[in-house]
Amino acid sequence: MRIVFAAMVPLCLAVAVIGADNAEPVPRIVDAGLRSEQAYRKLSWLTDRIGPRLSGSDNLNAAIAWTQAEMKRDGLVNVGAERAMVPHWVRGEASGRILAPAPHPMEILALGMSDGTPPEGIAADVIEVSSLEDVQALGDKAKGKIVLFNKKIFPNGGDDRGYGSAAGLRHKGAAASAKVGAVGMLIRSLATADLRLPHTGSMEYEDGVPHIPAAAIAPEDAELIHRFLAAGETVKVTFTLSCKNLPDTESANVVGEVRGSEKPDEIVVIGGHLDSWDVGTGAQDDGAGCAVVMEAARLIRSLALKPKRTIRVVLFTNEENGLRGGIAYANTHAAELSKHVAAIESDSGGARPQGFGVTAGPGAVEVVRRLAAPLAPIAADDVQAGGGGADISKLADAGVPQLGLRQDGTHYFDVHHTMADTLDKVDPHDLAMNATAMALMAWQLANLDPPLARPEPAPSKP
Amino acid sequence: MRIVFAAMVPLCLAVAVIGADNAEPVPRIVDAGLRSEQAYRKLSWLTDRIGPRLSGSDNLNAAIAWTQAEMKRDGLVNVGAERAMVPHWVRGEASGRILAPAPHPMEILALGMSDGTPPEGIAADVIEVSSLEDVQALGDKAKGKIVLFNKKIFPNGGDDRGYGSAAGLRHKGAAASAKVGAVGMLIRSLATADLRLPHTGSMEYEDGVPHIPAAAIAPEDAELIHRFLAAGETVKVTFTLSCKNLPDTESANVVGEVRGSEKPDEIVVIGGHLDSWDVGTGAQDDGAGCAVVMEAARLIRSLALKPKRTIRVVLFTNEENGLRGGIAYANTHAAELSKHVAAIESDSGGARPQGFGVTAGPGAVEVVRRLAAPLAPIAADDVQAGGGGADISKLADAGVPQLGLRQDGTHYFDVHHTMADTLDKVDPHDLAMNATAMALMAWQLANLDPPLARPEPAPSKP
Repeated sequence: MRIVFAAMVPLCLAVAVIGADNAEPVPRIVDAGLRSEQAYRKLSWLTDRIGPRLSGSDNLNAAIAWTQAEMKRDGLVNVGAERAMVPHWVRGEASGRILAPAPHPMEILALGMSDGTPPEGIAADVIEVSSLEDVQALGDKAKGKIVLFNKKIFPNGGDDRGYGSAAGLRHKGAAASAKVGAVGMLIRSLATADLRLPHTGSMEYEDGVPHIPAAAIAPEDAELIHRFLAAGETVKVTFTLSCKNLPDTESANVVGEVRGSEKPDEIVVIGGHLDSWDVGTGAQDDGAGCAVVMEAARLIRSLALKPKRTIRVVLFTNEENGLRGGIAYANTHAAELSKHVAAIESDSGGARPQGFGVTAGPGAVEVVRRLAAPLAPIAADDVQAGGGGADISKLADAGVPQLGLRQDGTHYFDVHHTMADTLDKVDPHDLAMNATAMALMAWQLANLDPPLARPEPAPSKP
Repeated sequence: MRIVFAAMVPLCLAVAVIGADNAEPVPRIVDAGLRSEQAYRKLSWLTDRIGPRLSGSDNLNAAIAWTQAEMKRDGLVNVGAERAMVPHWVRGEASGRILAPAPHPMEILALGMSDGTPPEGIAADVIEVSSLEDVQALGDKAKGKIVLFNKKIFPNGGDDRGYGSAAGLRHKGAAASAKVGAVGMLIRSLATADLRLPHTGSMEYEDGVPHIPAAAIAPEDAELIHRFLAAGETVKVTFTLSCKNLPDTESANVVGEVRGSEKPDEIVVIGGHLDSWDVGTGAQDDGAGCAVVMEAARLIRSLALKPKRTIRVVLFTNEENGLRGGIAYANTHAAELSKHVAAIESDSGGARPQGFGVTAGPGAVEVVRRLAAPLAPIAADDVQAGGGGADISKLADAGVPQLGLRQDGTHYFDVHHTMADTLDKVDPHDLAMNATAMALMAWQLANLDPPLARPEPAPSKP
């Protein structure tokens, strides 16, 4: 299947790309990209050899060093690490149990940035909610309780019934619960598969609101508590977290370039985030994105193609629990953002690519659709309005057009932020297709005249 | 959907059962069975309220008490507990790590009946195999090593590529490894889903062969070790198990009857096993089977139907790590086994029923196929040669015809012997269909004249 695909595509492309700028390089990128195993090799090293890459960890530092060396080996220039201070949260241990009406263990993971519990843990009755409004409405009923946010999510559900519909509960649930007097917060894992696997993820405290400990439990545990409550039982649980927040520590974004031949000061950023959660090895989130952008630049370089503008790979630090890498990049490069013609992020895993999302000025979606057309033979040419990525979102204020490489997300939230986010979940050829799509889009945006329209400025605030 | 089904079936059955014995009761059983929620309620109590039921545990004793009370409430007679001595293995704690070439945690569960490691654990290089023959061929190479049995299984793969193809490695792998000088045994979990979930299960030592510790690791961990070994690396791991084998302890099979009206001494046994592993709550394995046979008897009793022969519910103890319940039943009832006309077991979970497997004498498959025909409207009428269950296998020597209720097994080995074998994996109406199928077959076999042909005796040994 794989060989057939690689052999077939150039023939299709010979027709598809007639009339496109730089017509000849495009099929060369596609052909070489679909034959390459380099993206998977890079991802293998990041995950199997280096491992999870939480902000502040030795592993992330090792990844920062290794990716620079790798970019140099691949022939990129101006390779370096750009300093960013990051939060330094450490997980420690977690355990939890249902105490009543019947004893059961809970599979539990602290939410990132949560404070720990006292060493003996906390124990309280559970009160169940499914929204932030529910919590507010509890009033005094929540006093001394542990609030359980129990909202099931569905694959490809987006902001309606998917991850986006529940991530806010994870971020803000502890503060909302503390405001009404709760002593702890639990959340049903934001999971689209039920195999007793807890999913971590970031949370935030609010100034002036007590810091109560916050953790995710497996979907099965949340279902069990729900069944007990629905039967009219009082449910008492206990949990212990030894996680803690240490002082901020130094980290870095890793950058490297394929330098532009005509307008080297104009930049197309292609990025992913190098940090990951500390459970699993961050293969889908976002080792895949890092491998894809590194491989995209390597591909262009290996074909001795010379883009008119500079293609800059950025591996951001600290996307997961602070976004400090994205903020640092925007600050460090503030003076040149007016010459950033586009930024493309890949942060939705390594499954089969579907196309791009675009947040830019008038007509930009149509232009990107035309540029993506050569990806029709691999069904990666679906371009939609709206898209980007968390790390590059900080470039939006400066009017940089934002693109997100979109992947099939059906199974992404099965493993997202879990022990199961490991290399075996990524198909090598799917990853090669992603790198190919990224290389093709970066190459064309680096040569596009005029560049993509920048977003209309938001109306100035009064 | 559910209401439509229940309303529709009797109409179909009115045609289907023309000519069958006891034609009128059959549609009544089916109609009442498909409307009933009692099987799920029983399973809920066994799993959520009582919990996992390992041999020797207080929970199993609680289940033995509760199921007797429940059978009495349901109007069964001769309800009681029949003593059986069982192994008393306790799990303790388990932990494991890959030490080299890169550090990674392993998700690990001791195999049932394994001895523990020294408190500091064991650490050694890994040697990978996929069969017992592979181990034997290792010879001196295995000395001082930890042997990893790494065989992937597939859903519905049976003895060729499914659970049956690898269970023997779990049972006999430690002894085979110890014979060639290995110091520990690991096995890739017998799993058909990969979400970093280890699957436990039973193993056996051999007399005169050193007892080396044995554990299952998550599929992802086995894959990672395989990738390292395939790259030519030396892989070193460590693991610690605090499991231990205590002296045998007292347990019991639970029995209860719907007494026969004409030939009360002739028996149809319907059974499942009440014990489970100590991880998860044994919902699929085999709380479902227990709920199904209890509900089948309750259904017949609640309709005031009087079978000619006695239908005897047997909830066997210790199927998982000893089969002592099955052995005890065969011994205790040795004198009456010639009057056991059939035994039906349900021990393949609570998913949608497909039909029955039959191990009996000439013509029996065809007879059972005719008896199962009224289940055609719910697609549970597929009768195949071969089938039974571990607990009733001990009745085979006495020539008792064996039947197994067959379920859709596609997802059974996703959760089998894991923390994820919990109530939420069972659909209430699927379970009702199983109980209906069991009741219908038990009722008909209790009334069948002549009874099913007994298996031909095996040729006597010289």
